[in-house]
Amino acid sequence: MSTYSHHNNELTIKNLNETVFLKGWVSKVRNLGGLIFMDLRDQYGITQLVVRPNTALYERASQVRSEYVVEVKGIVIERESKNKFMTTGDIEIDVTELNILNTAMTTPITISEQDNISEEVRLKYRYLDLRKPTSKNYLLQRSKITQSIRNSLLNNNFLELETPYLVKTTPEGAKEFIVPSRLYHGEGYALAQSPQMFKQLYMVSGFEKYFQFARCFRDEDLRADRQLEFTQIDIEASFITQEDIMKLGEEMMSNMFKDILGKELKLPIARLTYQDAFDMYGSDKPDLRYELKIEDLTDKLSTYHVPLFESKASLRGFTLPNNALFTRKYFDKLTEIVKKNHGDTLAYVKHEGGQLSGSVSKFFDENVVADGYTLFIVPGTYEGATNACGALRKELAKDLGYIDETLESLVWIVDFPLFEYSEEDQRLYARHHPFTAPKDLEDFRNNPKDTLAKAYDLVWNGYEVGGGSMRIYNQEVQNEMFEKLGFTQEEIRNKFGFFIDALKYGTPPHGGIAFGLDRIVMLATKTDNIRDVIAFPKTQSARDIMMESPSPIDKLQLEDLGLKVIK
Amino acid sequence: MSTYSHHNNELTIKNLNETVFLKGWVSKVRNLGGLIFMDLRDQYGITQLVVRPNTALYERASQVRSEYVVEVKGIVIERESKNKFMTTGDIEIDVTELNILNTAMTTPITISEQDNISEEVRLKYRYLDLRKPTSKNYLLQRSKITQSIRNSLLNNNFLELETPYLVKTTPEGAKEFIVPSRLYHGEGYALAQSPQMFKQLYMVSGFEKYFQFARCFRDEDLRADRQLEFTQIDIEASFITQEDIMKLGEEMMSNMFKDILGKELKLPIARLTYQDAFDMYGSDKPDLRYELKIEDLTDKLSTYHVPLFESKASLRGFTLPNNALFTRKYFDKLTEIVKKNHGDTLAYVKHEGGQLSGSVSKFFDENVVADGYTLFIVPGTYEGATNACGALRKELAKDLGYIDETLESLVWIVDFPLFEYSEEDQRLYARHHPFTAPKDLEDFRNNPKDTLAKAYDLVWNGYEVGGGSMRIYNQEVQNEMFEKLGFTQEEIRNKFGFFIDALKYGTPPHGGIAFGLDRIVMLATKTDNIRDVIAFPKTQSARDIMMESPSPIDKLQLEDLGLKVIK
Repeated sequence: MSTYSHHNNELTIKNLNETVFLKGWVSKVRNLGGLIFMDLRDQYGITQLVVRPNTALYERASQVRSEYVVEVKGIVIERESKNKFMTTGDIEIDVTELNILNTAMTTPITISEQDNISEEVRLKYRYLDLRKPTSKNYLLQRSKITQSIRNSLLNNNFLELETPYLVKTTPEGAKEFIVPSRLYHGEGYALAQSPQMFKQLYMVSGFEKYFQFARCFRDEDLRADRQLEFTQIDIEASFITQEDIMKLGEEMMSNMFKDILGKELKLPIARLTYQDAFDMYGSDKPDLRYELKIEDLTDKLSTYHVPLFESKASLRGFTLPNNALFTRKYFDKLTEIVKKNHGDTLAYVKHEGGQLSGSVSKFFDENVVADGYTLFIVPGTYEGATNACGALRKELAKDLGYIDETLESLVWIVDFPLFEYSEEDQRLYARHHPFTAPKDLEDFRNNPKDTLAKAYDLVWNGYEVGGGSMRIYNQEVQNEMFEKLGFTQEEIRNKFGFFIDALKYGTPPHGGIAFGLDRIVMLATKTDNIRDVIAFPKTQSARDIMMESPSPIDKLQLEDLGLKVIK
Repeated sequence: MSTYSHHNNELTIKNLNETVFLKGWVSKVRNLGGLIFMDLRDQYGITQLVVRPNTALYERASQVRSEYVVEVKGIVIERESKNKFMTTGDIEIDVTELNILNTAMTTPITISEQDNISEEVRLKYRYLDLRKPTSKNYLLQRSKITQSIRNSLLNNNFLELETPYLVKTTPEGAKEFIVPSRLYHGEGYALAQSPQMFKQLYMVSGFEKYFQFARCFRDEDLRADRQLEFTQIDIEASFITQEDIMKLGEEMMSNMFKDILGKELKLPIARLTYQDAFDMYGSDKPDLRYELKIEDLTDKLSTYHVPLFESKASLRGFTLPNNALFTRKYFDKLTEIVKKNHGDTLAYVKHEGGQLSGSVSKFFDENVVADGYTLFIVPGTYEGATNACGALRKELAKDLGYIDETLESLVWIVDFPLFEYSEEDQRLYARHHPFTAPKDLEDFRNNPKDTLAKAYDLVWNGYEVGGGSMRIYNQEVQNEMFEKLGFTQEEIRNKFGFFIDALKYGTPPHGGIAFGLDRIVMLATKTDNIRDVIAFPKTQSARDIMMESPSPIDKLQLEDLGLKVIK
């Protein structure tokens, strides 16, 4: 038979009487009074086939079962009962030839939208799960988003350049995968967690604008939306400013909105300083599809004497209209959330029909909150209470239906602190990474804890989808940075020597950003499961259920690497 | 200062008297009679700057050394002594402002084309080596070639889709890198050697046309042109034929030739069967920029009695015009090559001025070869002698200057044997990989050793740049294939169970190809060093000299993986 003439989404009443060749999977077979009807499915859509009785091919058609792969020749005819929901719903194919290209056993999962099968089974048979139009669509969108983003970058004269994945290990790299060397026993490579140093070396080399869709590998502790490997749209440029990079990111996102979502993204994207974001929303990645700002209640409640609030630095919270949801049990749930998120506890006062009720109501009068409203109060340190309110805000918005799913909220968070101070370890940690430039060099030298960074994150509906910074390009400042992070000169030399060296020979001012492709696709396709947008994902337990990986390492292979398993 | 207004390759006499802002690296400083001349270099080119004495910025300009990063403001003026070899050679910039953005120490390698520094030093300072226009150009071309190829595939409605790099280990995978699991001690992932099974699963899932620029990881024994990781243009499609894939590959290469080399590639590309290629050129990747076919001398020499040729199945060789190069020492070198390549030895007869000379000349008369010519004779088995002649052919072509570097020779090799039989192991090995479809199913079942494969390689100037095949899509045939390769049912289940299962549920006919991006760029840019076209390559000893990797694995890290080094 000839190769196919059309995909299965193409034929309409305009093609009436044409002879066509189609191929695909039979997604449904019905034998109605001798007529055999089949839905023929391919990547693009479905076309209905009909095989008449007493034809030579009737017997062969009778053997066809669901998911058989067939090719057919036939004539486009008008359907008797039309289907308005299908592009090909006005026609069907009067089949004149049919070849079975492959048979199929009964599939362990149904190739239909309805089945409510567990994710584990879906992933075990991922190759069947991906036949479902919804599952398939996530990846079709991913492919389109990839091209849209690439086009934006190419249009801005960025070069697509690669970086190695087998890189140098860094002794404290708790999050890094180790690849033992077969040639040099006891030695190994690490899998690159990101192309950070390499993209900066491209700048040192005089490549002005770099990008790459880079795979990144992180052996992180497991969380719902993490994968061992993920794809990053990695960008770096020289002789540019923070504004240039942010503008590029906005152009890229706006084109993507137009190309993929058919929506206009209003530019410029709003900006919030880290401090404002934290103060108002208790988060550096606030979801701004709803308002729900955190109130500072410290002054307002200072005239009341509440034992629970004694010696608390801060009282922060929300005033919300009463809701049937606000039961004692619900407050217990919220209190758990508050405690898990560094608030001391959750107190509340409900004002209804002139009466106050709630955990601390006896300490208040009716002026504390208007009738018909509930006051949520989180005592604690400023940081602790605010952080807890951030978590509370998300929970309340979800439970109270504040989220308008048709909205898209994008916001830049800027002016991040350069460091985080760990009381426990009594040392500074880099909030982004140790290559981020301080906003003010004097601050950096004299008051590092309060130094701001030339760093910027892009947040979409409460998810961080991009993060970047201007980089340190002065060798001495880079060295000081490593010192401030507690490295000795020997450690600096051992771990970053080649990089510090590279900065010595004429490094241009540069900066960049990296966007998470998986997250962008997840948000663009409105799923909340990152695994939906990855063709062959690992589970939350870092396993590939389909391949059954990881699997025991062969003893001989281990020996070949000069290694053995500790019992 | 403003951001830059032009790159350093842009300004010409047309811009005379314009005020411009430039930036870049100072590649040369000359102080001539008080005037300071500088060459300002960026990714794009070089522009000459001039700073006049007695200006406020003269002192600052005097501090500038080679490889300093500067930004300047100035006016375009006409040069006194023009440089015809530079696009900006008619003008220079009369500098009015100059800022030093970064200083530079004296570089350990000169950023110029002339220096003949060792590759080891070049790689240690790769970030400086890449500042050289020639080095940089390899990667600029790589970026362009990538886009050209991607465009060809997108224009043919291929989807760019990703596959995992952390995959299942296969016990005999001698060439695979192992990534030990931190969560499951004694278990591990492998780094994907290619996306082969995943791209076939995409076909099973009903994605019709897939491609990916995939990184592949192979822990191969070291050879001059191998890297631990390389980039493959990976392609697969369903409901297509071998002809379709070959046509796609030709379109892709022809577009690339036009876009990058500005040359027309004549289509269709010539084809040779594996058997003919081997018989005529002693290789499955013949360089056809020169003819130099292997002659069969078995019959021709059968009337002569040469003890050395007794009981030899085959005599193969060449007749070449005499050359001053043809000394005894030279024949000794060639004999080494013959022996290394499975020929028994090399005999020769030189006919010059009516006299015969050479290793076996006394057994011949003057009719054996015309005056002025030398006959090269390799005795051995057909395979051994032919293979040796293939190696000889390459050496002779190089030494005798037969290669016209302005030519490009592309050829498809088709009809490969499906298997290779190892006398040593007494078993069959897959010549390509175990998913390659046999050309004839009866042959496959009854006479596997002589079965041909639906496989095709693309060869460019003697390098294999692409290889592909139609795949087995019938589950039973796939199972038989694994059995023929000596796997037990248990081994098949353990290693390929999920894949065999996948084939059961309606697999379409499919096939594909993979092109080596690194090799294509190497050939397109006319270098013979694969490391030139990789930004940060490993050496032939699998080391990254710049990063100093691999490096000792930290003891704690190893413990965390549940492993220890065997002493």
